[in-house]
Amino acid sequence: MNELTDWKELAAQLRVDSIRSSSAAGSGHPTSSMSAADLLAVLASKYLRYDFDEPGDPRNDHLIFSKGHASPLLYAFYRAAGAISDDEMLSFRKAGSPIEGHPTPVLPWVDVATGSLGQGLPIAVGVALAGKRLDRLPYRIWCLCGDSEMAEGSMWEAFEAAAHNGLDNLTVIVDVNRLGQTGETMHGWDLSAYAARIGAFGWHVIEIDGHDLGAIDSAYAEALAAEGHPTAILARTEKGRGVASVADRNGFHGKPMADPEAAIAELGGARNISLAVAVPTGDRRAHTFPVGPLVLPTYALGTKEATRKAYGDALVALGTARGDVVALDGEVGNSTFSELFATAHPDRFFQSYIAEQQMVANAIGLQVRGWRPFAATFAAFLSRAYDFVRMAAISRADIVLAGSHAGVSIGEDGPSQMALEDLASLRAVFGSTVLYPCDPNQTAALLPLIADRHGIVYLRTTREKLPVIYAPGETFEIGGSRVVRQTDADQVTLVGAGITLHESLAAAAALAEEGIAARVIDCYSVKPIDAETLRAAARDTRAIITVEDHWPEGGLGDAVLEVFAADALRPPIVKLAVRSMPGSATPAEQLALAGIDAAHIAAAARDALKEYTQ
Amino acid sequence: MNELTDWKELAAQLRVDSIRSSSAAGSGHPTSSMSAADLLAVLASKYLRYDFDEPGDPRNDHLIFSKGHASPLLYAFYRAAGAISDDEMLSFRKAGSPIEGHPTPVLPWVDVATGSLGQGLPIAVGVALAGKRLDRLPYRIWCLCGDSEMAEGSMWEAFEAAAHNGLDNLTVIVDVNRLGQTGETMHGWDLSAYAARIGAFGWHVIEIDGHDLGAIDSAYAEALAAEGHPTAILARTEKGRGVASVADRNGFHGKPMADPEAAIAELGGARNISLAVAVPTGDRRAHTFPVGPLVLPTYALGTKEATRKAYGDALVALGTARGDVVALDGEVGNSTFSELFATAHPDRFFQSYIAEQQMVANAIGLQVRGWRPFAATFAAFLSRAYDFVRMAAISRADIVLAGSHAGVSIGEDGPSQMALEDLASLRAVFGSTVLYPCDPNQTAALLPLIADRHGIVYLRTTREKLPVIYAPGETFEIGGSRVVRQTDADQVTLVGAGITLHESLAAAAALAEEGIAARVIDCYSVKPIDAETLRAAARDTRAIITVEDHWPEGGLGDAVLEVFAADALRPPIVKLAVRSMPGSATPAEQLALAGIDAAHIAAAARDALKEYTQ
Repeated sequence: MNELTDWKELAAQLRVDSIRSSSAAGSGHPTSSMSAADLLAVLASKYLRYDFDEPGDPRNDHLIFSKGHASPLLYAFYRAAGAISDDEMLSFRKAGSPIEGHPTPVLPWVDVATGSLGQGLPIAVGVALAGKRLDRLPYRIWCLCGDSEMAEGSMWEAFEAAAHNGLDNLTVIVDVNRLGQTGETMHGWDLSAYAARIGAFGWHVIEIDGHDLGAIDSAYAEALAAEGHPTAILARTEKGRGVASVADRNGFHGKPMADPEAAIAELGGARNISLAVAVPTGDRRAHTFPVGPLVLPTYALGTKEATRKAYGDALVALGTARGDVVALDGEVGNSTFSELFATAHPDRFFQSYIAEQQMVANAIGLQVRGWRPFAATFAAFLSRAYDFVRMAAISRADIVLAGSHAGVSIGEDGPSQMALEDLASLRAVFGSTVLYPCDPNQTAALLPLIADRHGIVYLRTTREKLPVIYAPGETFEIGGSRVVRQTDADQVTLVGAGITLHESLAAAAALAEEGIAARVIDCYSVKPIDAETLRAAARDTRAIITVEDHWPEGGLGDAVLEVFAADALRPPIVKLAVRSMPGSATPAEQLALAGIDAAHIAAAARDALKEYTQ
Repeated sequence: MNELTDWKELAAQLRVDSIRSSSAAGSGHPTSSMSAADLLAVLASKYLRYDFDEPGDPRNDHLIFSKGHASPLLYAFYRAAGAISDDEMLSFRKAGSPIEGHPTPVLPWVDVATGSLGQGLPIAVGVALAGKRLDRLPYRIWCLCGDSEMAEGSMWEAFEAAAHNGLDNLTVIVDVNRLGQTGETMHGWDLSAYAARIGAFGWHVIEIDGHDLGAIDSAYAEALAAEGHPTAILARTEKGRGVASVADRNGFHGKPMADPEAAIAELGGARNISLAVAVPTGDRRAHTFPVGPLVLPTYALGTKEATRKAYGDALVALGTARGDVVALDGEVGNSTFSELFATAHPDRFFQSYIAEQQMVANAIGLQVRGWRPFAATFAAFLSRAYDFVRMAAISRADIVLAGSHAGVSIGEDGPSQMALEDLASLRAVFGSTVLYPCDPNQTAALLPLIADRHGIVYLRTTREKLPVIYAPGETFEIGGSRVVRQTDADQVTLVGAGITLHESLAAAAALAEEGIAARVIDCYSVKPIDAETLRAAARDTRAIITVEDHWPEGGLGDAVLEVFAADALRPPIVKLAVRSMPGSATPAEQLALAGIDAAHIAAAARDALKEYTQ
């Protein structure tokens, strides 16, 4: 059979090129690439539909290497497909080359960065959801996984979510090469162990010899025919297949060949096979949702509302105005108020259950196809998906994460439910935007802005109802702030955000009665921060008090300190933050116990003015 | 049967008391407690072995509420067992009360904080590992789980790990009450869906009606008899069982009873049953490991070695000197050098595979029993377990996390493998210690110190071999620093740690040739930081340059800024950090591209001295 011969030759080329690129680089993972070469050769030759000239074609299939360290195989495929030249392939891992150690979307054909194991499949589920429920196009998602990463819990969140959503457009190929980085995996070549697990999760499972080209072909055909559920192809393979000195031997993970020339010769030498990957056909129009005008919710001055509620209200309005806006939640939609979106726009709501990694992965997958995801849960539980957020930044993903119930001010539920490290962890994500509104109109006004913002946007919301201090229709900007109290003779500056802005205002009122004029700045944009307004306050006043419902490290106070880092002269900055482990208490008690309520702020201001008399 | 009547009455009391405490608090989760009351009544009456008077008795069973929001049920049990008074129980969620909204080890009978779902079971696996492999005592671990949390991937890491390790001392009770916070779970009352999944993972599975006291009794007996594998009891229950207005109805999650008196009356009124929990018997001596002298490894001045290697070497020595020291790794032991410990002390090494959440959970579980865990993986992948680390701090856990391959200096592998947010995220953990040594002798010297340190200790290590600059035997302290270059006429201070300390030294050498004297501080203790030494440098020099292989937010630079927050006068501080997304390149190229190599440091020093002439 000619097909089989062609595939065999192509697979040999993919192996050889995996060796060539990693040897040129002096590092990389050739053996992890070689195990999957046959699987990819057949997929690319016969099943994948992809137009390399038009990576943005909505009909394109998606090929996601969950085992990102098999990048030499991916790049070898790109070379065979004519997407990159041989020289480009051989620039693997060199400074400035887009042929990076692990795949990233610096290359137009790569959807998402992989390399932290257990993330490609969850994100593939997100792309598959986009195909089924949003785009409504018949593209397929092919995800190549390693066997080591099957130990990651995120994989099982993904298996569960994919089956629950009936994602028959998703095919997972598990390259069971038995060997992890340091030794044998838990299950070695026991395909039945994987089959039992994945089958129990509701998938169609096919077990094959991953080097039997005919069996591989049949498995893909079977996957294409499966309806109503995703398919997993469990392929028994040899790590380093084709080169006897390394094949199925431990100790060669992530190592180039000791003798690449001999290895290449053993594989029959270098080849120059050109692979014409089939391009997708059919209607290229993705489904769109009807849109209306943007009518943001409004809240009357002097009333009270929680910013989490404003998030929910405004997200509904945004969803009406923009058909690309979609919402996700981690089964706490009545707390985050995502439930309002679920009711208003059910076709664009994704219930992710208590599986925060999968929720964020879904968001990343949906934005691969151009949708604008807003994913919400308790801010504390976003920490569960921190590695996914870190990688999302490397993926150049545009996603919004909305964390509710921030800080000690949630009250009685206690520390497990309090986000007190979220500002720190999410500020430390590359290119991120971190917003912390204090007012429902402000929250609503920010939502259209963040829907257009690139990168990871984090919106921190508060559980408690807060006084409305901004009139409906006031405008805000990312990177801005608001001076909410100011006189000609301000002595001290209070910098708050979210709930601490209101405490700062109350403190300023108390100080005013004592004849101390305090400027109050609402620093709702924590990153980027409004340096200009803070500098003006530094010129005008004798001390700055920052107040945050957060641990002292990495939050609002540190963002303010950063502004003045290179300034030799600036007023002293006193950071008020949560410095002891909270327990249960009412919100007001919590703020007092943490030393971040109005009374403590006023006291800190008094002390600072006493201490730092100029 | 008298037993059944007793259990029925006790279960009614547990339900009534769950209502009483949550009604007194005005918040809490009575319905989630009521579903599991029968399960707990039988367990506590007949199977649990626990001495409330001696919570430290090594023979005690461990009862872990993975569904921590069912805390009213736990406290009702404590009251029945006489551990707390009725008044104490009714102080639920009040300021200052140890009867917190979710259980924490503020109470001596609580092993770990729960309330972030999906963590109790993974930690229970860690405790069970301690029982089997370290303590070698027959105590049992009983873990009560909710059905909503079965969506968390961490649960499946735990199911896999428990079966792989043959933990027949672990029994999981899944309270399948069908309803999550906002609606039905993915599987509702389909016990067979859970049974298939958990069974496929290698567990013995028992399906019961969770309100049939006889069936519950039989299930526990069957679990006790199971050998070689853990048991999961899948119990079909009704949320809010016993009160018709809420039983099996959606919309009552986390809400006290609307009419508690009527609900209590419906349950037959308040009761005062005293439960005599059986105390453990038998030999109370836990296994101990033989110890020898502490002989730390040494590295000759002028040679080169990676701090990750020194970590591995020193951990072996520490393990020899201390029988309580144990090591864990995420299947990258040849990178973190945990493999050295695995070879030297195989009985105390825990391979956690590529499952970082389970690795950290194992560490938390092991320290519950007094072992001193050192858990290692790539620093970037510790982000996978961030929620576990956050919760570990609430658990008052003493664990060491060693993250290797920090920063861009890992080189060609690219950003997915680089920890660039770890200092920020781990500084923002309550009570944490963050160390970042630059030298192998220093690394070795720190290890015995952190083995005695309370709380979460993070040790950041470097992939590259670095010059040995400290003589063997030099002492270091947590909270200390080292001035590694100093003259009487220093003009500028360079603050580095880890690999940037060496770049700073090279920069200082270059500056010296130009007649600029630079002080160089090795800030190896990032948290707590040595404020005194930094203050001295601020007095003596005209500018401070901080250099870190990390994003600009929340790392070394911000830790230095924090020292001077309240100082009106201090020299300008220039923060050098990684400010663009890296790709692949050699380590030296990466440092240059990130602007944190010697040349950039020297340039920054020159610029600062030009700009800030006094």
